[in-house]
Amino acid sequence: MLNRRQFFSTAALAGSALAGIVPAVKAAAPAADVTTEVVPSKANPVLLNFNENSLGMAPSAKKAVADALVNGHRYPDDAKEAARAAIAKMHGVDAKQVTLGAGSSQVIQAIIAAKVEAAKNAGQKVQVLEPTPTFGVAAAYVEALHVPVNDVVLQKDTLAVDMAAMKAAAKNFDGFTIVYFCNPNNPTGTVTGKNELSAWIKDCAAAKAPVFFLVDEAYGEYVEDPAFESGIELVKQGLTNLMVAKTFSKLYALAGLRLGYGIATPEVNAEIDNFESIDNINLASAVAATATLADAAYLKTSLESTKASKAIVVAALKELGIKYLDTQANFIYHEVKGSNADYQKAMAAENIFVGRTFAPFDNWSRLTLGTPGEMKAFVRVLKSFRAKGLI
Amino acid sequence: MLNRRQFFSTAALAGSALAGIVPAVKAAAPAADVTTEVVPSKANPVLLNFNENSLGMAPSAKKAVADALVNGHRYPDDAKEAARAAIAKMHGVDAKQVTLGAGSSQVIQAIIAAKVEAAKNAGQKVQVLEPTPTFGVAAAYVEALHVPVNDVVLQKDTLAVDMAAMKAAAKNFDGFTIVYFCNPNNPTGTVTGKNELSAWIKDCAAAKAPVFFLVDEAYGEYVEDPAFESGIELVKQGLTNLMVAKTFSKLYALAGLRLGYGIATPEVNAEIDNFESIDNINLASAVAATATLADAAYLKTSLESTKASKAIVVAALKELGIKYLDTQANFIYHEVKGSNADYQKAMAAENIFVGRTFAPFDNWSRLTLGTPGEMKAFVRVLKSFRAKGLI
Repeated sequence: MLNRRQFFSTAALAGSALAGIVPAVKAAAPAADVTTEVVPSKANPVLLNFNENSLGMAPSAKKAVADALVNGHRYPDDAKEAARAAIAKMHGVDAKQVTLGAGSSQVIQAIIAAKVEAAKNAGQKVQVLEPTPTFGVAAAYVEALHVPVNDVVLQKDTLAVDMAAMKAAAKNFDGFTIVYFCNPNNPTGTVTGKNELSAWIKDCAAAKAPVFFLVDEAYGEYVEDPAFESGIELVKQGLTNLMVAKTFSKLYALAGLRLGYGIATPEVNAEIDNFESIDNINLASAVAATATLADAAYLKTSLESTKASKAIVVAALKELGIKYLDTQANFIYHEVKGSNADYQKAMAAENIFVGRTFAPFDNWSRLTLGTPGEMKAFVRVLKSFRAKGLI
Repeated sequence: MLNRRQFFSTAALAGSALAGIVPAVKAAAPAADVTTEVVPSKANPVLLNFNENSLGMAPSAKKAVADALVNGHRYPDDAKEAARAAIAKMHGVDAKQVTLGAGSSQVIQAIIAAKVEAAKNAGQKVQVLEPTPTFGVAAAYVEALHVPVNDVVLQKDTLAVDMAAMKAAAKNFDGFTIVYFCNPNNPTGTVTGKNELSAWIKDCAAAKAPVFFLVDEAYGEYVEDPAFESGIELVKQGLTNLMVAKTFSKLYALAGLRLGYGIATPEVNAEIDNFESIDNINLASAVAATATLADAAYLKTSLESTKASKAIVVAALKELGIKYLDTQANFIYHEVKGSNADYQKAMAAENIFVGRTFAPFDNWSRLTLGTPGEMKAFVRVLKSFRAKGLI
């Protein structure tokens, strides 16, 4: 019954009241001019807490949805297949290698259900192995399946994934391991490079190790770090020990419409499909995704807007001497003075909502990169906090 | 990877070619005047094959979707909770008793996953028990979980559910039974009355029998038979051995947007929620459902249109002396001369697409009740078939 807001809030708050850190209203329409500093208010709070894309949907996507509603009473097979074809074309894979879900969270759920069932049915023990902190849905899903989650804490100094510990945890397990690997990671925004992650996946494939990699690249579109390699390259090489999860909720600004997908070999996808409900994709998301994929101008604006916002925030953090990680995503992870819980409340009092706490890093804050105009408002408040000794 | 069309087509065709019975295009916009006889063509076929609502979405729902897209880049928590509240209010239950899914098919998947896992975790054997033919998704989902499906064929004479055989099959199973019960049933359109179904559910509850009822009332809004009782009445009495699945795809004409729900006690719903992905409901479906629920005029028109269509078809079937069942849904099940497979092809040649075959009743056809104008076209073709000796 929990919605996303409650799910992730309670995960952070361990049951304490949400009052004060959950906005009363959603933000109004994105401003036409996204670079002018906004004025946060109770009626128009600045929402930098869920890694949404403040730019708003592409106008072409809105038009596509409105135009499609004439067939809203029909099951959406045609629109679904058109979206699948457009996604396949973008990645240079066959449509059979694309499995669609109501957000990547559903694709993650389906592949986990499939792999857990396969392992249990073969009489194998099974575990989910992941770095922590990371995006929490994989762990949430397997809990219901009575599967243990092995959390490997990020390295204390760099907040990078502890690859040696991850590999050891997989090697030492006497059963089947599902590795959940968010790359770039959430909340850190940093990537694990090709020499580490791709190499591990290839080694496991070569050794036929009982390990399956669920590589979540929700933020892959934002990566500039040349060390990064998309897992899709490994899928193209025919590796069957991974699936890459992707989403239209970030760069494409379609979080509300729910479309995500997985890229894997046709054999792996056939396994996943058995665990997806028959009509999980809706017409609105399918036509909006297809339209946005074809809208090169919007995609360029979307990416550039986030980069401009990153530059604004990074300049301020540098100026204030606040420690931060070099993000490759649409959010940035930085230190705060005292606890993030207190910092969240102080920001909320200014009608700016920032990300939840990711244990055990209680003095770090995940800040979504909204529009440049929103980030200017954030920076103004952040500097006022410094003046008050709050940061 | 199969979409709905392929899933249900191949189920019927056992792998044979789809050519000839799958339309090349979807129907164009519903006509403004829904009672004037339509002219089926290749470009504008009449689609009476998936129990969709040919009337099209309520204009109020279309407007609600278009208006909501300004927040399409945000996760849709608020719209989801508003839809849940509206559904709860309609049924007179608490919001905690409403679980939402991307169509009722997803709710069906989630409750099955939850109950199968609970049984397996308790060391129990588990089976799904259902009348056959019926709507096929429950059986499809459990196959992936390696759970056997016990199909009890409908009574040969009346095509009613064989309640004695169903009860015996549950009683004789040495484990946990999940009963999938579509009421009114699909494809027959007939109901199993309160004295039979409600009584059985109550008996099982009183005896604490290891049986859970998944009552699918996708077509409940169309029922006029006074023998029918919604399972929601039993939920309101506090019974925890059932969930009722409902959909916005039929009376509400929102099949493309994907919204279904389950009604159960809060305890049962808490179990289901663990098996649903965190953001399964999309903004468009949520606001469209809320708007349609509030649109009494549209709902009246929708119901009356289907009843008018039923009257048109029943009159023709009577006139032609064709055997049919007294439907309580938005489709009607009738006999054909020869096989339904051949009949489907003959209708498709006239650009009218009727339902697939439901084994073992190979000489029966399921006809969706579209608009009165569509049914007039159907009747004209049906009568021409009689003249040719085809029916």
